[in-house]
Amino acid sequence: MNYKMKILVINPNSTVSMTNKIGECARQAAAPGTEIIAANPTDTPASVEGHYDAAVSVPSVIRMVREGDKNGCSGFVIACFDDPGIEACREVAHGPVLGICEAAMHAATMISSNFSVVTTLARSVPIIEELALKYGFERHCRRVRAATIPVLSLEDKNNNARQLVLEEVCRAVEFDGCEAVILGCSGMTDLTDWLTHESGVPVINGVGVAVKMVEALVGVGLQTSKVGAYAQPLVKQNSPFD
Amino acid sequence: MNYKMKILVINPNSTVSMTNKIGECARQAAAPGTEIIAANPTDTPASVEGHYDAAVSVPSVIRMVREGDKNGCSGFVIACFDDPGIEACREVAHGPVLGICEAAMHAATMISSNFSVVTTLARSVPIIEELALKYGFERHCRRVRAATIPVLSLEDKNNNARQLVLEEVCRAVEFDGCEAVILGCSGMTDLTDWLTHESGVPVINGVGVAVKMVEALVGVGLQTSKVGAYAQPLVKQNSPFD
Amino acid sequence: MNYKMKILVINPNSTVSMTNKIGECARQAAAPGTEIIAANPTDTPASVEGHYDAAVSVPSVIRMVREGDKNGCSGFVIACFDDPGIEACREVAHGPVLGICEAAMHAATMISSNFSVVTTLARSVPIIEELALKYGFERHCRRVRAATIPVLSLEDKNNNARQLVLEEVCRAVEFDGCEAVILGCSGMTDLTDWLTHESGVPVINGVGVAVKMVEALVGVGLQTSKVGAYAQPLVKQNSPFD
Amino acid sequence: MNYKMKILVINPNSTVSMTNKIGECARQAAAPGTEIIAANPTDTPASVEGHYDAAVSVPSVIRMVREGDKNGCSGFVIACFDDPGIEACREVAHGPVLGICEAAMHAATMISSNFSVVTTLARSVPIIEELALKYGFERHCRRVRAATIPVLSLEDKNNNARQLVLEEVCRAVEFDGCEAVILGCSGMTDLTDWLTHESGVPVINGVGVAVKMVEALVGVGLQTSKVGAYAQPLVKQNSPFD
Amino acid sequence: MNYKMKILVINPNSTVSMTNKIGECARQAAAPGTEIIAANPTDTPASVEGHYDAAVSVPSVIRMVREGDKNGCSGFVIACFDDPGIEACREVAHGPVLGICEAAMHAATMISSNFSVVTTLARSVPIIEELALKYGFERHCRRVRAATIPVLSLEDKNNNARQLVLEEVCRAVEFDGCEAVILGCSGMTDLTDWLTHESGVPVINGVGVAVKMVEALVGVGLQTSKVGAYAQPLVKQNSPFD
Amino acid sequence: MNYKMKILVINPNSTVSMTNKIGECARQAAAPGTEIIAANPTDTPASVEGHYDAAVSVPSVIRMVREGDKNGCSGFVIACFDDPGIEACREVAHGPVLGICEAAMHAATMISSNFSVVTTLARSVPIIEELALKYGFERHCRRVRAATIPVLSLEDKNNNARQLVLEEVCRAVEFDGCEAVILGCSGMTDLTDWLTHESGVPVINGVGVAVKMVEALVGVGLQTSKVGAYAQPLVKQNSPFD
Repeated sequence: MNYKMKILVINPNSTVSMTNKIGECARQAAAPGTEIIAANPTDTPASVEGHYDAAVSVPSVIRMVREGDKNGCSGFVIACFDDPGIEACREVAHGPVLGICEAAMHAATMISSNFSVVTTLARSVPIIEELALKYGFERHCRRVRAATIPVLSLEDKNNNARQLVLEEVCRAVEFDGCEAVILGCSGMTDLTDWLTHESGVPVINGVGVAVKMVEALVGVGLQTSKVGAYAQPLVKQNSPFD
Repeated sequence: MNYKMKILVINPNSTVSMTNKIGECARQAAAPGTEIIAANPTDTPASVEGHYDAAVSVPSVIRMVREGDKNGCSGFVIACFDDPGIEACREVAHGPVLGICEAAMHAATMISSNFSVVTTLARSVPIIEELALKYGFERHCRRVRAATIPVLSLEDKNNNARQLVLEEVCRAVEFDGCEAVILGCSGMTDLTDWLTHESGVPVINGVGVAVKMVEALVGVGLQTSKVGAYAQPLVKQNSPFD
Repeated sequence: MNYKMKILVINPNSTVSMTNKIGECARQAAAPGTEIIAANPTDTPASVEGHYDAAVSVPSVIRMVREGDKNGCSGFVIACFDDPGIEACREVAHGPVLGICEAAMHAATMISSNFSVVTTLARSVPIIEELALKYGFERHCRRVRAATIPVLSLEDKNNNARQLVLEEVCRAVEFDGCEAVILGCSGMTDLTDWLTHESGVPVINGVGVAVKMVEALVGVGLQTSKVGAYAQPLVKQNSPFD
Repeated sequence: MNYKMKILVINPNSTVSMTNKIGECARQAAAPGTEIIAANPTDTPASVEGHYDAAVSVPSVIRMVREGDKNGCSGFVIACFDDPGIEACREVAHGPVLGICEAAMHAATMISSNFSVVTTLARSVPIIEELALKYGFERHCRRVRAATIPVLSLEDKNNNARQLVLEEVCRAVEFDGCEAVILGCSGMTDLTDWLTHESGVPVINGVGVAVKMVEALVGVGLQTSKVGAYAQPLVKQNSPFD
Repeated sequence: MNYKMKILVINPNSTVSMTNKIGECARQAAAPGTEIIAANPTDTPASVEGHYDAAVSVPSVIRMVREGDKNGCSGFVIACFDDPGIEACREVAHGPVLGICEAAMHAATMISSNFSVVTTLARSVPIIEELALKYGFERHCRRVRAATIPVLSLEDKNNNARQLVLEEVCRAVEFDGCEAVILGCSGMTDLTDWLTHESGVPVINGVGVAVKMVEALVGVGLQTSKVGAYAQPLVKQNSPFD
Repeated sequence: MNYKMKILVINPNSTVSMTNKIGECARQAAAPGTEIIAANPTDTPASVEGHYDAAVSVPSVIRMVREGDKNGCSGFVIACFDDPGIEACREVAHGPVLGICEAAMHAATMISSNFSVVTTLARSVPIIEELALKYGFERHCRRVRAATIPVLSLEDKNNNARQLVLEEVCRAVEFDGCEAVILGCSGMTDLTDWLTHESGVPVINGVGVAVKMVEALVGVGLQTSKVGAYAQPLVKQNSPFD
């Protein structure tokens, strides 16, 4: 079936080094026929840490999806673990739009009976718990844990951020009895193999999984339903991008 | 206790006639010591009908809350039934921030054992169902119904929009066995008394209730918790409003 | 709107010192136009610690609500954290009837994304967990904790009961990751400010909040729905109070 | 094991003809070694139709359980479908205490994958829905239906009450797709065989099932746990029955 | 009513010593009129530890139920805590079919407000959690714990398996705050009285309870519903046992 | 990454024409580097209609997965909508194992906010409802509907089975308000495009989606977790296939 496609992977924050890391991870995961375009808005916060950062990034993300949709992108990945704006993006896209939290949680339940999440800051814990509920995985999710590190600390290899992530992953395995661990920040994507090796359980990085799931949906001809919640936005006064 | 306060009631869309209607309703509900400021952004869609309209309105709503917080507002009401951006607004506010869907659902469960919601368009039904789940009222909510009218049709008294809302309210009472009905659009606020009279059950308008609940929280000294999900946004590069 | 009202605050147990403490708290919370009547039955157990104590207190509570309803009370607060008999009281009242557990949980979810409860005895923990479920807050409630003190120990300032409550509140903040704490006994109402100051999170006392929420509902014209679960009791042989 | 026992079956309302019908049903279900004592308080409403009727009946029911416990009863059945006061009764009993709604729902899920309930009045529907939730059967329960008949109409064979029950049972089978039907009133116990025959699905009468389940628990040596929620009431001032 | 009956108690694994233990326990629980037939297949794994062991045992279990049904058995107990194949067995049986996990969880909620389970191996924990969800007891179940012992270690009295079970039961009482403990393996049935005595809470052994519940259902005339999920299997090519 | 792989698609029933249809569908969905092996056991029922048919097919399915795992298959699809034995198959496989109900439900929630399922017989409705619960999609699933046709009627083009499926799909769109429809039987796979065209909503065929999701998981290096529920079966006496 359809195996030539272009997937737009959007890092909602404006930190280019994260976008590069995300793009590299996405390309490693992509099938031969898939072109990955990794991009970020330039007017959004340097990192997304909480509801506010996510909310103010969303309009730029929507605009990029809208343009990508017009420019022939087959599908979209929103590469921030809060999955900011994915429903709104679905309204403006024909192809599938997946968040990396969403994709990672789906994948986790396919290869294990439960999982824990390790994210960066404690303030993100209730956000991710609410996402688990929205997607239907509140029972599969053993616990959402914070390594208590700022997102951008992961961009600097000369600190102990990686080590703190590893320690929290190991605590998840030991104390939560979880069978898989999801990395709760797109800035952790390059740690996946190392953490899998160290922890002894599958460690899931949402960026790679989301790319593959978009490929899967596109490959089988599924597009975003335009009946109901994700119908095209209605044209009206002051609607941006029109 | 505290009974002098200023509450900022924000209509997220840019339709001034709706803001006026909302403001009037809010002032009718407010206690003698409460000053109501009703306002809307000027750069947002003319109505909020779906995820996209809500998402692109949120940054302007947040900005208004932030400014209101600096200017001494004690609390905030987001007067759109999709409750757009309330978590992000809570991060930038010290006082309580309530959505009108949220407030109406809380009130409904205090005076009845279950309720139905009557909103405008079918595309809003899954949005409101998800809000009911987020707030914990998915079991109290019998059904979310759409009158199948555009939001702005309620601004024009020379059409059948009001009649269609009444018919759907009556269907809710008859077929859902509900004990109260919530009006699922801030544009319906002026219909509350009429619909209560016609339907025989309490009909709840979120604007009035939200104002009273903000007064209640402020009056008893409760502010938004700054530990966890609603902590002040972290200062960072490209964070707007700084 | 309506800002003159009389609220009957019922302490279901027969300990007058608790009633006085509850009444004082209610008056501090009440708006200028609100008259608070704090009262207790004289034939009920000295404290409510478990299902039995609650159940045998309920008929007297209902009688008081019924009389209050006839004497022009606009609303009712049942000031025991087990919320004994609130559904039955709603059948005999026109105005709103709120329990203090109910009111506190509603308020907590408006200012935080989750909460824990600190109550007195371990036997009350499953009762409060079931209330959280009934009201829809089972996901918002991180944990119900017991300070392991008898209710009446809070009436005596010369013991360590207050200190034990503080310690449990601090454990809730540290170990549950909660963003607010609810005091799970009306005998703790006078500790609210102190515990808020010591713990660093909003500490919620249901008495004050319930008074404000009744004011809010009355103020916006909402009464208990008389269609369905809370319809007036049917007149029949042996029905008391007739 | 234990197969000599005395079970106290309490009809919470004061209508003797119902108690007789309940007692007959209980005796038919009982094992040879089981003595059934069917009784009712004399000071309670003539029927239980709603929260109020239930609440004012509970103290008398508790008193009867307490006396039964002292007089050697091995277990207790509360033969009203609202299961009034069962938790409080458990505090004062050593043997098991079962409600007939509880017992019927347990049994239904053992012989079918889902069930509907047919009760008398619409006001009881939300009460029974809440019981289903409390017991864990909210997903197994397809729907709670009302035949819209007063409880005491079932005491008179010269009206159409029986016919209306049958019609509602048949609607449950046809429209709910249910695999079993529970009779939601102890006044319907004598209709069980007839309705089973007419409807083609198992029709469950809680009185018989509750007696058998109490026999089962007693027979295997299980008593009410005295650790936690159902511990003996604490002795205190004004506690009745002491 | 019906008090002469034959109950087939099937140990799905092929270890005869376990079958004997199970049979003894079942006979102790059975009423005078009940004949217990304890049996096991000879071609199934020596113990059931995980999904695979359960799945490969199921066809033999079904065959035994089918034959028992033809030979006049009134009801069936599947005496493995994973409740393997109970839905399929219900299709081929007229009488009730109960699993021992199912029966134990039902009983636990009748005598306590919550319970924990102590099973053998960690791999069984998610299986039992899923059963709790299926039966509706996910909220009543505080925690499923593993004593980390192989099933067959319980067949040998000269090791520390019993001691490890006791220690885990005590941890459940202390740390989970549970009011009852369920033994999560039919190989633990002979430890019930000892563990009850040592732990101070009711300890529930599913074999005894399941026998009594089957007696209860049969005694009151309830059979497996043949409308819907448990209708007789359709006759078709290659259907075994035909 | 990994884009050469062999996927074993197992039709659990023994009807070769269904296997061929499934294989064709799987091959259409597969990426260029994917080899599809479609196979069925020869000793299982001609169709799977209910718990019994599924249960007796499982051991043969497990055996085929085990052999496939040894012969280098990268992943597995169980192509029956009851997802029979997927947990047991996961124990014996290193690569991912997906059921077609599972895969279809995951995909549906990625492109719509809710879905309905159209299956063959009414007896399968509760089975699929329980699967939705197990996977976490009980809230996304609007309704499971039966076209009331035997599975094998879909193998014959000269009857009205296809028409009945179409009618039920249209009823789902009209009455459930669903945004996507899942085909609840692998025998319907060849109807996907036609039904999508006729209904106006995305119609999802689990076979194609499951193949793509297995490709996705394998492509990103995810295998079944061997810690916990899906660990390799323990070697023991009478364990088949050893």
